[in-house]
Amino acid sequence: MKELIEFCVRRGIIFPDSEIYGNLAGIYTYGPVGVEIKKKLQERWWEEFVESRNDVVGIESPIILPKKVLEASGHLREFNDILVECTKCKEKFRADLLIEEKTGLKVEGKSKKEIEMLIKKYKIKCPKCGGELSAIKKFNLMFETHIGTLENENATVYLRPETAQGIFVNFKRVLKISRKKLPFGIAQIGKVFRNEISPRNFVFRCREFSQAELEFFVHPEKVNECELGALEKLEIKIAPENKRKSVKEIWEEKIVGTKWHLYWIAKSYEWLVKLGINSENLRIRKHNKDELAHYAKETWDIEYKFPNGWKEIEGVSNREDFDLKNHSEKSGEELSYFDEEKKEHVFPWVIEPSFGVDRMILALLAEAYSEKNGKKILKISPSIAPFLVAVFPLVNKGEMGERALEIFRKLKKEISALYDEKGSIGRRYARVDEIGVPFAVTVDGQTLEDDTVTIRDRDTTEQERVKENEIITYLKKFLTRE
Amino acid sequence: MKELIEFCVRRGIIFPDSEIYGNLAGIYTYGPVGVEIKKKLQERWWEEFVESRNDVVGIESPIILPKKVLEASGHLREFNDILVECTKCKEKFRADLLIEEKTGLKVEGKSKKEIEMLIKKYKIKCPKCGGELSAIKKFNLMFETHIGTLENENATVYLRPETAQGIFVNFKRVLKISRKKLPFGIAQIGKVFRNEISPRNFVFRCREFSQAELEFFVHPEKVNECELGALEKLEIKIAPENKRKSVKEIWEEKIVGTKWHLYWIAKSYEWLVKLGINSENLRIRKHNKDELAHYAKETWDIEYKFPNGWKEIEGVSNREDFDLKNHSEKSGEELSYFDEEKKEHVFPWVIEPSFGVDRMILALLAEAYSEKNGKKILKISPSIAPFLVAVFPLVNKGEMGERALEIFRKLKKEISALYDEKGSIGRRYARVDEIGVPFAVTVDGQTLEDDTVTIRDRDTTEQERVKENEIITYLKKFLTRE
Repeated sequence: MKELIEFCVRRGIIFPDSEIYGNLAGIYTYGPVGVEIKKKLQERWWEEFVESRNDVVGIESPIILPKKVLEASGHLREFNDILVECTKCKEKFRADLLIEEKTGLKVEGKSKKEIEMLIKKYKIKCPKCGGELSAIKKFNLMFETHIGTLENENATVYLRPETAQGIFVNFKRVLKISRKKLPFGIAQIGKVFRNEISPRNFVFRCREFSQAELEFFVHPEKVNECELGALEKLEIKIAPENKRKSVKEIWEEKIVGTKWHLYWIAKSYEWLVKLGINSENLRIRKHNKDELAHYAKETWDIEYKFPNGWKEIEGVSNREDFDLKNHSEKSGEELSYFDEEKKEHVFPWVIEPSFGVDRMILALLAEAYSEKNGKKILKISPSIAPFLVAVFPLVNKGEMGERALEIFRKLKKEISALYDEKGSIGRRYARVDEIGVPFAVTVDGQTLEDDTVTIRDRDTTEQERVKENEIITYLKKFLTRE
Repeated sequence: MKELIEFCVRRGIIFPDSEIYGNLAGIYTYGPVGVEIKKKLQERWWEEFVESRNDVVGIESPIILPKKVLEASGHLREFNDILVECTKCKEKFRADLLIEEKTGLKVEGKSKKEIEMLIKKYKIKCPKCGGELSAIKKFNLMFETHIGTLENENATVYLRPETAQGIFVNFKRVLKISRKKLPFGIAQIGKVFRNEISPRNFVFRCREFSQAELEFFVHPEKVNECELGALEKLEIKIAPENKRKSVKEIWEEKIVGTKWHLYWIAKSYEWLVKLGINSENLRIRKHNKDELAHYAKETWDIEYKFPNGWKEIEGVSNREDFDLKNHSEKSGEELSYFDEEKKEHVFPWVIEPSFGVDRMILALLAEAYSEKNGKKILKISPSIAPFLVAVFPLVNKGEMGERALEIFRKLKKEISALYDEKGSIGRRYARVDEIGVPFAVTVDGQTLEDDTVTIRDRDTTEQERVKENEIITYLKKFLTRE
């Protein structure tokens, strides 16, 4: 993991922001290669979960949310970390992480008292100076700020801790204008903010990050009316035994509570595999009752086997009608759905596949990172590679250079490409291997004679001669959406 | 303008966020149609200003910035609005807007004293109650928040007021890893925040919005070493006379100070026209000395003729070495560029084309909004249309419906498409005309016989019969990057 992080920073894929001033913990910048991977991953998500479906629409709601929204959603009251302070050196720590590190126990959801008991029982002390720890305190994770200047308008607002709330508070208007019938979903991708006490593991737990969330609304009496179709055969590893079961078996054995919930777990799992993650490194894990977020009835994490252990990259929750009901009550607006068949108002249930974009990128990089003969190769899928192709002149002079530039400019118009003319051809291959470019087109002496170029495959290092006017067709094969 | 805004809200393109709680002023949500337009516009920008060029790289830096960055950039001291309070009703107003409304004078950059003189001279009173106005106060536009929980880490931070600072503070690392030589640019798209005293005109002046910025770094002695090429012939209207001059003339008459500055003005202008804005509705306007932002040496706005007048949608500034020099001094890190020819360190100058994404969308919508026989048509270019094509079964039953769905699913895999089966075919055409879908494919009786469909053109309403397996090729013609 350390090696992967160093690699990301050195290659400028992702690195701490504002380093020249001493960066803020948990705040990162995506460099020229990282931003292209992130962009492409988000595009693939949007294609898969919004564009290619007829039952999902997208929105983009703001980062700044009124206080009332977060009161109603429960985040102001419940979205806390539990903090202990060293009575000696005054350093603060997350109590749950201290307990987990020492004992392996998960304490999410446990009461204040129970946690203090655990600290006593396992004799947990300040990891810095060995001092006694204080009683625990709650610390809200949201960033607070103020909007407006006029006295009657100045208001406390928050940076959203999840994109989901923007979907719930705008549900009524989106439902109306999209004219969708249940079941249907509303999706968005965007930045969220959590003032984590202990940001760590690079972009795995950071304070400003991106989520790709889909809130899928289902009639409360039809939560099992769902066709699993071809997904039934998909085999999924289940924690803690990590044994594989087919989706069909998972449903028959009632491992997941509702069928639509299982559908979105399976759909997400399948998509991650399609992006190039070996299913050996994926598993699903059910939240214990005491780990569940305040809004969730049932949650399954999709975990990736990082070099430092299994960790969540996506959570799929059944939020039932928690959010719509609360916002309806607190705002006084009717947020229910009118069921035309039964002529009654119902609050739809919500199944929420929620992806951490940065965590997914980290998993994809971990999966792709490999070495061959001491050289690093990022074996990332063409669909999310920062550039699909690199173009090189074998020798950077005269006609060969001009021809290569001409080909590069032509390719640029249709696919993402980069051009490199500096250093030996071997150096250049190595450079693009390292940042995950799957193909390299080289213009050589023969090109000038018969209009063919070589296309080198990053993973096999094999080369093929292809006609210049067939390069685009050749490469586009690797980009089809299926 | 009012009509356009009502249309946007009614069709759910853009609407006030969190309406159920009484929305915050200047904070908006993009609905299902709006988000697709925004997404496509940002993609086109990235293609034009980053992907298709070999001298620009992209990044994505965070929204949260350390205080030190904004001290060095001058925003903490200079990024203010000037505020006056009514001594009677205590309402607050932006002094510059009050003066502008009453007199037409621009006061940006004027001193406190000068502005107070103007208020006296023109006898400007509280527009609400007619009371006397107070002396002016400065009000910083940045949103302030706090990060971290540990005492030694808790820090005041700000939501960035422009994406540019993220480029300057990460300049050193990006330069190193991208191995670029001057001149070259670093670009990013992202959210920015300004606590405007008077947000107004819908998304024209809002508090959370998106910028697409390019910082183009040029050797200070080579600011005129730039090939204008085909741009020389481009004709541009210049305020206040609104007379057209060719880019060549503009350069020869020394209207714009440096050639690279002119290049980026022309490039931006050309791109806006390519997106479908009539050049009659575009002009450039030079900032008066007293309107210039604190960092700018020379600024040209590209203005669009909105229904309520000429307004800025893009600013192209020459920031010279203001930012890199200040960050270098304040951080103690060397942010200069090593000129290998002359063997000396130089601070590059920066030319910055800065687009307001939301303003551009508003301009594009204003440009596209039209009526024909009492029906609204959004004549938006296919390259940024929310969906490229709509698919309809003429009659929604049996084979026709199935075939239409099948075609829709096939199209979805390669282009953005929407499906509609409800209502008469005329209704459905009208509905997609209104949200700007340029083409509609209809499956009718003949389709079942000879595998052809009709493709209707939104703007001409003419229909063509096309073979089913040629639809994609037919439509993709309208998406080429040129």
